[in-house]
Amino acid sequence: MSPQKPSLKSVQKLFKPKKKKKINHKVGLAPGALVYTGDKKLDKVSINLITYDEVDFYEEAIVLDQLEEHLKMRKKVLWIDIIGLHDVELFEKIGLLFGIHKLTMEDILNVDQRPKMEAFDDYLFAALKMIQCPTPESPIDDEQISFVLKDGILLTFQEKKGDVFEFVRSRLIDPKRAIRQRKADYLLYALLDAVIDNYFIVMENVGERIENLESQAMTSPGSETLSALYLQRREMMDLRRTVYPLREVIGSFDKYADDKISPETRPFIRDLYENTVQVIETMEVFRDMSSGVLDLYMNSLSNRMNNIMKVLTIISTIFIPLSFVAGVYGMNFDNMPELNWKYGYFYVIGGMGLAIIGMLIYFRKKDWI
Amino acid sequence: MSPQKPSLKSVQKLFKPKKKKKINHKVGLAPGALVYTGDKKLDKVSINLITYDEVDFYEEAIVLDQLEEHLKMRKKVLWIDIIGLHDVELFEKIGLLFGIHKLTMEDILNVDQRPKMEAFDDYLFAALKMIQCPTPESPIDDEQISFVLKDGILLTFQEKKGDVFEFVRSRLIDPKRAIRQRKADYLLYALLDAVIDNYFIVMENVGERIENLESQAMTSPGSETLSALYLQRREMMDLRRTVYPLREVIGSFDKYADDKISPETRPFIRDLYENTVQVIETMEVFRDMSSGVLDLYMNSLSNRMNNIMKVLTIISTIFIPLSFVAGVYGMNFDNMPELNWKYGYFYVIGGMGLAIIGMLIYFRKKDWI
Amino acid sequence: MSPQKPSLKSVQKLFKPKKKKKINHKVGLAPGALVYTGDKKLDKVSINLITYDEVDFYEEAIVLDQLEEHLKMRKKVLWIDIIGLHDVELFEKIGLLFGIHKLTMEDILNVDQRPKMEAFDDYLFAALKMIQCPTPESPIDDEQISFVLKDGILLTFQEKKGDVFEFVRSRLIDPKRAIRQRKADYLLYALLDAVIDNYFIVMENVGERIENLESQAMTSPGSETLSALYLQRREMMDLRRTVYPLREVIGSFDKYADDKISPETRPFIRDLYENTVQVIETMEVFRDMSSGVLDLYMNSLSNRMNNIMKVLTIISTIFIPLSFVAGVYGMNFDNMPELNWKYGYFYVIGGMGLAIIGMLIYFRKKDWI
Amino acid sequence: MSPQKPSLKSVQKLFKPKKKKKINHKVGLAPGALVYTGDKKLDKVSINLITYDEVDFYEEAIVLDQLEEHLKMRKKVLWIDIIGLHDVELFEKIGLLFGIHKLTMEDILNVDQRPKMEAFDDYLFAALKMIQCPTPESPIDDEQISFVLKDGILLTFQEKKGDVFEFVRSRLIDPKRAIRQRKADYLLYALLDAVIDNYFIVMENVGERIENLESQAMTSPGSETLSALYLQRREMMDLRRTVYPLREVIGSFDKYADDKISPETRPFIRDLYENTVQVIETMEVFRDMSSGVLDLYMNSLSNRMNNIMKVLTIISTIFIPLSFVAGVYGMNFDNMPELNWKYGYFYVIGGMGLAIIGMLIYFRKKDWI
Amino acid sequence: MSPQKPSLKSVQKLFKPKKKKKINHKVGLAPGALVYTGDKKLDKVSINLITYDEVDFYEEAIVLDQLEEHLKMRKKVLWIDIIGLHDVELFEKIGLLFGIHKLTMEDILNVDQRPKMEAFDDYLFAALKMIQCPTPESPIDDEQISFVLKDGILLTFQEKKGDVFEFVRSRLIDPKRAIRQRKADYLLYALLDAVIDNYFIVMENVGERIENLESQAMTSPGSETLSALYLQRREMMDLRRTVYPLREVIGSFDKYADDKISPETRPFIRDLYENTVQVIETMEVFRDMSSGVLDLYMNSLSNRMNNIMKVLTIISTIFIPLSFVAGVYGMNFDNMPELNWKYGYFYVIGGMGLAIIGMLIYFRKKDWI
Repeated sequence: MSPQKPSLKSVQKLFKPKKKKKINHKVGLAPGALVYTGDKKLDKVSINLITYDEVDFYEEAIVLDQLEEHLKMRKKVLWIDIIGLHDVELFEKIGLLFGIHKLTMEDILNVDQRPKMEAFDDYLFAALKMIQCPTPESPIDDEQISFVLKDGILLTFQEKKGDVFEFVRSRLIDPKRAIRQRKADYLLYALLDAVIDNYFIVMENVGERIENLESQAMTSPGSETLSALYLQRREMMDLRRTVYPLREVIGSFDKYADDKISPETRPFIRDLYENTVQVIETMEVFRDMSSGVLDLYMNSLSNRMNNIMKVLTIISTIFIPLSFVAGVYGMNFDNMPELNWKYGYFYVIGGMGLAIIGMLIYFRKKDWI
Repeated sequence: MSPQKPSLKSVQKLFKPKKKKKINHKVGLAPGALVYTGDKKLDKVSINLITYDEVDFYEEAIVLDQLEEHLKMRKKVLWIDIIGLHDVELFEKIGLLFGIHKLTMEDILNVDQRPKMEAFDDYLFAALKMIQCPTPESPIDDEQISFVLKDGILLTFQEKKGDVFEFVRSRLIDPKRAIRQRKADYLLYALLDAVIDNYFIVMENVGERIENLESQAMTSPGSETLSALYLQRREMMDLRRTVYPLREVIGSFDKYADDKISPETRPFIRDLYENTVQVIETMEVFRDMSSGVLDLYMNSLSNRMNNIMKVLTIISTIFIPLSFVAGVYGMNFDNMPELNWKYGYFYVIGGMGLAIIGMLIYFRKKDWI
Repeated sequence: MSPQKPSLKSVQKLFKPKKKKKINHKVGLAPGALVYTGDKKLDKVSINLITYDEVDFYEEAIVLDQLEEHLKMRKKVLWIDIIGLHDVELFEKIGLLFGIHKLTMEDILNVDQRPKMEAFDDYLFAALKMIQCPTPESPIDDEQISFVLKDGILLTFQEKKGDVFEFVRSRLIDPKRAIRQRKADYLLYALLDAVIDNYFIVMENVGERIENLESQAMTSPGSETLSALYLQRREMMDLRRTVYPLREVIGSFDKYADDKISPETRPFIRDLYENTVQVIETMEVFRDMSSGVLDLYMNSLSNRMNNIMKVLTIISTIFIPLSFVAGVYGMNFDNMPELNWKYGYFYVIGGMGLAIIGMLIYFRKKDWI
Repeated sequence: MSPQKPSLKSVQKLFKPKKKKKINHKVGLAPGALVYTGDKKLDKVSINLITYDEVDFYEEAIVLDQLEEHLKMRKKVLWIDIIGLHDVELFEKIGLLFGIHKLTMEDILNVDQRPKMEAFDDYLFAALKMIQCPTPESPIDDEQISFVLKDGILLTFQEKKGDVFEFVRSRLIDPKRAIRQRKADYLLYALLDAVIDNYFIVMENVGERIENLESQAMTSPGSETLSALYLQRREMMDLRRTVYPLREVIGSFDKYADDKISPETRPFIRDLYENTVQVIETMEVFRDMSSGVLDLYMNSLSNRMNNIMKVLTIISTIFIPLSFVAGVYGMNFDNMPELNWKYGYFYVIGGMGLAIIGMLIYFRKKDWI
Repeated sequence: MSPQKPSLKSVQKLFKPKKKKKINHKVGLAPGALVYTGDKKLDKVSINLITYDEVDFYEEAIVLDQLEEHLKMRKKVLWIDIIGLHDVELFEKIGLLFGIHKLTMEDILNVDQRPKMEAFDDYLFAALKMIQCPTPESPIDDEQISFVLKDGILLTFQEKKGDVFEFVRSRLIDPKRAIRQRKADYLLYALLDAVIDNYFIVMENVGERIENLESQAMTSPGSETLSALYLQRREMMDLRRTVYPLREVIGSFDKYADDKISPETRPFIRDLYENTVQVIETMEVFRDMSSGVLDLYMNSLSNRMNNIMKVLTIISTIFIPLSFVAGVYGMNFDNMPELNWKYGYFYVIGGMGLAIIGMLIYFRKKDWI
């Protein structure tokens, strides 16, 4: 239990009601029709082209028309990073240029796509979510990233510019790094690795949130805790849908893609697979912890109720009978001999005092106070 | 949490006690006996015949006797859409005409049939439920739809006229659409796709209902919420029985039907399969959310109980002891010196005031008020 | 929710404490020893022999000694229906006569036998429970039924005479029915079908019982509801043990019995298998509903407790402070100026009235009344 | 519900705190080191030798040194029953004499061994627990029994002399019994069967205990019930660990031991396997029943709480307002006109009586009394 | 239930808030980069070299530079025990020297590594956690241990010096012990066995803790119990993550490592596997027990609440009506005939006494006192 009580506000801020999301924007369209299902996040689709071999490294932001020309002068590895998914026309051209199946193009543009990996005859396709949550206080942000690997060319598709790939780019520039010796399949691995690494950071921050909720449930269970708990549970559900298919996606690279992934890259893919398994196991632990926090909350509440009832019972048990006695001697009967005794009042007061002491001893023995 | 409190009435309206449904109307009949197990929803069974190839498109509403004649003049693809299932005699003739097994005909007419797909030697058979729920307020409506695909002929069977197939029909009319180039297996796919698309709309509306229940459970848990929750849970059970077999049904097309589904249509069927998986996963999330709402309800109720008990305890703890004191000075003993003190009354009133203040401070410290 | 409140008596009657049943009567006996483990339900074992082909139909109640003689004059299909299992000696003879394994004979007589299907080299053996529950008010009655199919001879073994097979018998008499064209394996199927059909009726009635309990849990939760719920749950457990192995039993016919079940009968067996799956799925739904009813009961009880507490709190919160005030002015101090005011009493009464009104407004605002 | 309330004492006696059991006594020893991990239950290890064929039967209690000599004069089947496991040295000799692997010998002596079956090249080894619980009042007693089957010799190892094998022994003596015709594998089966039979008796008695707890939970839920329930649950956990591996153990005989179990004995082993499955299913039902009893207990407690609260609320709701009225007319204001009315007192008393009657009617309408 | 009430302090001490642990320290690094992710626990990495065959035994603490030299003079088995993982440079050299894959080296240094076993072409790699908890009062301490087995050389990697391997070392010194006859694979087994043995001790102590919590939950449920329970549950989660992969790790030795593990060592590995299964099953039982303790706690709390409510209700039910009666006779009406009766007071007092006795009898009949 962290010692400082976490601020309720900071916890609740994390769980704002999600913007209403259409489950599927594409109902009522012919299959294979290209539609971008997300929000337009950029003004213009930008295409960043990187090509390199052991010796050379070349990078340029290009427009689509230049692409075909650049393809001719490519080195061993060519990486085309496309940022922004809203320009449907452009994607139709790209699909034609690289011979990508219509349904694959549809999957790239459909940001509600379930993470998946498909091995076609001449290319590999993978789509997954990149999630980010830089601090425990920040909301979880997800973005779809797709990969197409074909004949030493790697195409990547992102919704908006991020810095996840930046780290890989910086390693590419340095000619001494191992990555420059390797082929496009290793580049694909390196990018996937960068994406999966971010899952670890998210897990860590989610873990911290759950611990905050936990200490709240323990120390001050209230209806705010309850709603925070509930929203946290929903966030976990969303997260699970993002994380669980990953195992299959990464596992498929090893299983189905034997001619497109070189033997040298295989152990790295397996390593990545293990990391994915670890993310999923952490997820499972969080799930157990979450339901544990709910139990904690309920029991904590029962404890409080118990304490409240104890106070009520102690007060009532002591004073209701005494009030009765006082009531008896407040009766107006003509003939009540005790009333005329000289020390009657003091006897009664004394008796009441003794009764209070007796009851306190009884409650202490019963472990109520 | 949506800000406005949803109207209880609107929620309850959705969950009317279902009409008592016989689990199986067919007990005590010889197997293979054709019986329509639904309600008669139409006056007359109507047969709609569509035949087309790349060039021509022909559509006519016919009667059974014309059918054989039309079969001769058919184009590449022939689609016979039969609406209404109550005319058992007519279906016996159709079964004979197209060589459909008696048990298949029985399945077509049995609207309590579990969704299924069967590959016979010379035809494919699939039966599934089409569900509709156009708005979050409307009840879920289901209808059985069966497909028989044989030698370029597609037979579809519906209980009543709907507009789900309308969209496919309109694409068929347009000679430029891809569907006109394709065979009957693609038509089957297109119709299945139209049916599955409706599941997404239903899911979205069910999701909205659960969220309404959620906000109700949070803000005003009562016995109406409880019964709405319970009925929602039963609706989910029904829905699950409809949705879960879909995975197997759609999956079977890819697995067992290799000679009846052309390689070009395969990727589309796989895409459809993925959509089905997504529907089922959404269903799973709803299941978790539903049980989450029940927990929320219970805890919300406990919270309220806790608050009620707090009020009771605070009032009792303050006033019961004070009433006792008042009772003491209301006793009629002859010898009660305090009563004769000049400011006795004011001392007591003052003491009582101090006690009230003390207790309020104590409760505030205990975080009760 | 059905509108009329179901009679408690009628619900409870269904769940009488079961007669104490020995789990296994056979402990301490050599394996293969024939012992009938049920109650003797008939005076005499009766043997009913039916033999038929497309043309002829012959039926006679015989005694064991006549059996061998009749075997010679049999038609295409011979059905020997043995009713009553207590005459161990007779069963030893039957076992010898038809070459049935000792362990099979043991299974036939052991009515606590788990439903099972076994394919021996020269015969098929199946044992299952026939359950009956003609109305929602009647208790579930189960009876073991065993089948042995060998060389066109079908032996059936029942504990007592029932009317389930009657319907098949009546179809046999009619020479125009399909069943007369078929072999003994189809007869076996037809009888199994008749047994499984009864499961649907039981399911329907069990479903109605659960719905009655549900409406009781909602409207008048009490300790009778609780015990009815609990007994219903136990009944479900018993039912599950009867129903679940069915899937395996019926499934085995298709899997293991390829040379004893003719290809024409196969689709019917598969159809039967699907029905079994439907029974099991209904069972699963009932299980969920049952646990749902328990939740409903608990929450309904919490709701009522909440309402009771509200009443208590409202009454206490209003009158305890007022009583205190009355107590104050009931004190006997000599110097209490208010007492001498002319309208003191009316001021106090008025103040009290205002306090009551104020509190009622407060409670209404808090949504308690 | 059995009519007579079961004695609490008798229930609690069953669940005495177990003697503290070391989970594993062998930590820190070299693997393969022979250590008896149980309590020394006998003074001396006794060896009982039985050898028989169709004609002869010979039995003698021998000492180890005589064993080798006896081995020469053995009939078709030789059964060596070793009772007592504490003489480690003797077991080393036996292991050498029969060529049993060190790890097998270790398993025989380790009474905390998980039930298991192992097929070595030249022998079969099986270890399982024999449990006994002759009456519902007696505690469950378990003992490890191991079997080694090698070349027509069956070695059995028990911790203490019991009467489970006695029944098999008595059948062996009778030359007419089938068991005398059979080989050592059938003897092994017969002994296993005797052990499994005891599980049925235990199940029956455990079932009766659960029913007793059930009726207690229903009629008089208290902290004794709770602790009995809890201990019963722990007993079930222990039992499950004993029972669950049985399925695998018995199943292994059929799967892995094809050359050591003769085809004639196979159906009997399968029959035994089915019995084991039945034990495990009963176990599962008990598990459900147990958790059902806990729910019953909780709900029963809630019911009682509800009733207690009702009484409190009824009493308070009736008398607190009336006391207030009495308090009002006990005030000492000079000017209280009602006090001077001739029938004021009777009006008030009458009004109070009417209020009581009114409230009783209200409570009856609310179904509280 | 152990008779003495366990000290709360001693229980809570066990569950100190864990030091905040980064889930993965390696985010943002190139794959294969060696980083030690634990705390530096030693000043210097120490290398202990043991080499032996049947005849000779040689042991020396060396530095890395001497290693290559020692490799030449090695006996049949060479064991290099490396203690301390913080000197990354040293590990790079070791990796190169023995030809260990970069990813394996990374796994060795990453102490948050999930337990795993990998069979490479020329070596076996295994990493697992060694857990220790010498007494029920001590916290669970875990440390990563890695093994590399290559050509008769066994490398072991530990974070800090422990005494688990000490026992194996002492057996190695004794030339008569079986271990001296065997190869490096048996040494690997012996060390794994020593590690797994410690799990049994931990299980025993964890079991004792759960039992302490249990008796606390039964006798004095309070918020300390709740937090102890909750922390115990989290400890179990951590433990499970350590224990569960063990089954796979040990199982892999048998499955994948056929050419590196000799047939003689196989049965021992299988034995070890069974021990692992036993640890996992114990873990499962603890999990059930843990959730059982939570139920116990909740029900124990409900019981107490019930008892508190009973006291409150008894007191209120007796005295509130009597106070009302006293209040009635305290009214100041002029005309209250009873007040003037000679024995009015005594009648009333007597009546009150009778009422108290009556109510006590009623409560006793209702089983409340």
